[in-house]
Order: sequence, then C-alpha cells, then structure tokens
Amino acid sequence: MRILVVGASGTIGQAVVERLSGRHDIIRAGRSGADVQVDITSEESIRAMYETVGSVDAVISATGGAHFGPLTDLTPELNQIGIDSKLKGQVNLVLLGLESVRDGGSFTLTTGIMMDDPIRQGASAALANGGVKAFVHAAAIEMPRGIRINSVSPNVLIESLEKYGPFFRGFEAVPASRVATAFEKSVEGAQTGQNYEVY
Amino acid sequence: MRILVVGASGTIGQAVVERLSGRHDIIRAGRSGADVQVDITSEESIRAMYETVGSVDAVISATGGAHFGPLTDLTPELNQIGIDSKLKGQVNLVLLGLESVRDGGSFTLTTGIMMDDPIRQGASAALANGGVKAFVHAAAIEMPRGIRINSVSPNVLIESLEKYGPFFRGFEAVPASRVATAFEKSVEGAQTGQNYEVY
Repeated sequence: MRILVVGASGTIGQAVVERLSGRHDIIRAGRSGADVQVDITSEESIRAMYETVGSVDAVISATGGAHFGPLTDLTPELNQIGIDSKLKGQVNLVLLGLESVRDGGSFTLTTGIMMDDPIRQGASAALANGGVKAFVHAAAIEMPRGIRINSVSPNVLIESLEKYGPFFRGFEAVPASRVATAFEKSVEGAQTGQNYEVY
Repeated sequence: MRILVVGASGTIGQAVVERLSGRHDIIRAGRSGADVQVDITSEESIRAMYETVGSVDAVISATGGAHFGPLTDLTPELNQIGIDSKLKGQVNLVLLGLESVRDGGSFTLTTGIMMDDPIRQGASAALANGGVKAFVHAAAIEMPRGIRINSVSPNVLIESLEKYGPFFRGFEAVPASRVATAFEKSVEGAQTGQNYEVY
C-alpha cells in the first residue's frame, strides 16, 4: 500500500513508520524534515499536501496539539488551539483528502485517553479527542467507495513520561510500538468506525 | 434557585422552563423574544449576557446548531457551523460563565444521540456532541467552588419528528418533557461529569 503518515517525525509517527515501512510505501508528512511539509491548521496547506502526494491507499494522522492548563485559566483563545489543531486539523485531513484516497482505502486519526480517563489540565485536549472520536464513529457509515475510518486512542507513552509524566501519575504508560500496532490494525484490517483504545 | 436557561424558546428549552419554573426563578435567554438576548457564537454576546444577568445558581444550555448534510458534501466551512455553535458556543458558556455561577452551582449542556448512534448526514453534529461530552467529563474534575457540570443527550424529539423524522427512521423518539427531567436531575442532583442519555 501507499500510505501517507502525517506527523511522521513525532513519537507515535516514528513508531508507525517503523511498523509499516517493511511492507508498505510510506510518505512522511509533517511541519519539517519530512517528504512533504504540511501544517494541518491550514486548509490551504492540507490541499497543497494532497496535490503533491497524489493518490494513496491510507492516510494516518499521528499529529495534533492542544493547550494543557488549569480549567479556571482556560480561555476561548487557549481552547482554540486544540480545536484548530487536534480537532479541525485532523477532521480536515479527511474532508479535504477523500478524493485522494483510493477505493477501499482508509483514514486513521489520533484521539487520546484523557477523554475517557480525565486528568487535571486536560479539558481542552479531551474536547478535541471526543470530537474526533465522534466524527470518526459517525463518518464511517457515510464514507464513499468502501473507504474506512478509525481512530487510535493512546495512553500516555513511556517515551513521553519525562515530559508528560506529572500530568499522568498513576496511568500505566504504554510504549509507542504498542500504539503503532493499533494503527496497523486500522490500516490493514477491515473494521471501520472504531476507536482503538491502547490503554 | 436562580437558573439561566439559554435557548429557552426552543422545544427542549420550553420543556425545561415548564419543568423548573414552579420551584425556581428562571431567566430565559435566547436569540430573540427572551428576557435577555444572546448569540452563543459570539464571545462578546455571552459576556454581555452574564453581565446583564448577574449571579445564578445554574446555567442550562438547550441550544446549539450544526450543519446536517451528506459527508461527501461536508466542507470545512459547513463543519464550522457546528463547531462555532453547538461545540464552542456551549463550551464558551462555561468558560465565560464560571464567575457568574455561585458556589455549588451547576452547568448543564446539550449533546445528542448521533454521537452514539450515527445517522446519515450527522457527522458534523456528532463531532460537536462528542466534543461537548468529553469536555464535560474532563472539566468536571477541575471545576472550582463545588460547581458541577453535566450534559444531556436527547434522542430525536417527538415534537420534532415532522422536521427531523426522515433523518431518524427507526429511532424511538422521546417527548421533550422526558428530556427536561434529565436537566432537572443535573440541576437539582449532586452528580457531576455525567452525560445523561435520554434514549
């Protein structure tokens, strides 16, 4: 398969590329240092990426940011960061990429454990994750040409504990390699409308 | 209690007002014909509403729109309607209203069955609903001064079948009066972080 991985240089993206590159033709996309550059908060940039890349069998999104901070300090402006990036950025990869995905292909987006198992300072990220999950679940029944769509919801990564550990005390961190297997299942399996929890 | 009902003239809003007005002091807010006018897609309008209304014990949001249409016709622009209204509009009622809610008060927002039980043309509404649900679940653990937050997820309403029936074939429509009881439970009960499904 020809697979576009958006966010290929991130911790999850790298693990996904490693997992899939033996059997597949991988195109790495990201903000820098990738085969093709893209800023998912810009519709224009997403359109340009798909124009450059051409047809693919699968689009994987392992990207999307959100603001972490106390709820009482959360302003509409800070909340907008996650809406523009993790939520709209990922959903726009689908809306603007449908024509670029071949019959029977797939999209796989990324959500996250905070929507199910809340943490302090995580309300805005949870919002974005929950929006993506619900979109995936609903969009799956209307995808054209046998195209599938799923999301992967990772726990905090072992690789990210140094940075995010204090937010996730008591969570059983998972290795990025385990998260990558869920992406593999989404791309090479036949299920659709799923949110694979890697908890 | 002094309760602000945003979207008071809608089908659910009217039922909520009817259910609660015997025991409580209700302030009706909406785009027109209410005690106080508000457009939830405008932060400025939300701020002005809270300034006019002053302190309350509970904020109920029974409002928020989204675009209904086939997924293959869904553009980022059309998707924005639900993001601005049902998702950000309702979340901003919380972020901008925290100071106006008294100690031990509550917020109750509205989601909807499409996020759990998808329908054709409902992906954008599902996205908004899922975002609100996840925000509520996560925000609940960080609310200050004992303030609670829940959401109510209605099935299609019997009262709305003439307009929305074709989208919801096979769904067991519920009366708005039943949905209103879930809002009552949220406001007068002690639970937080819940999404009450009225299915």
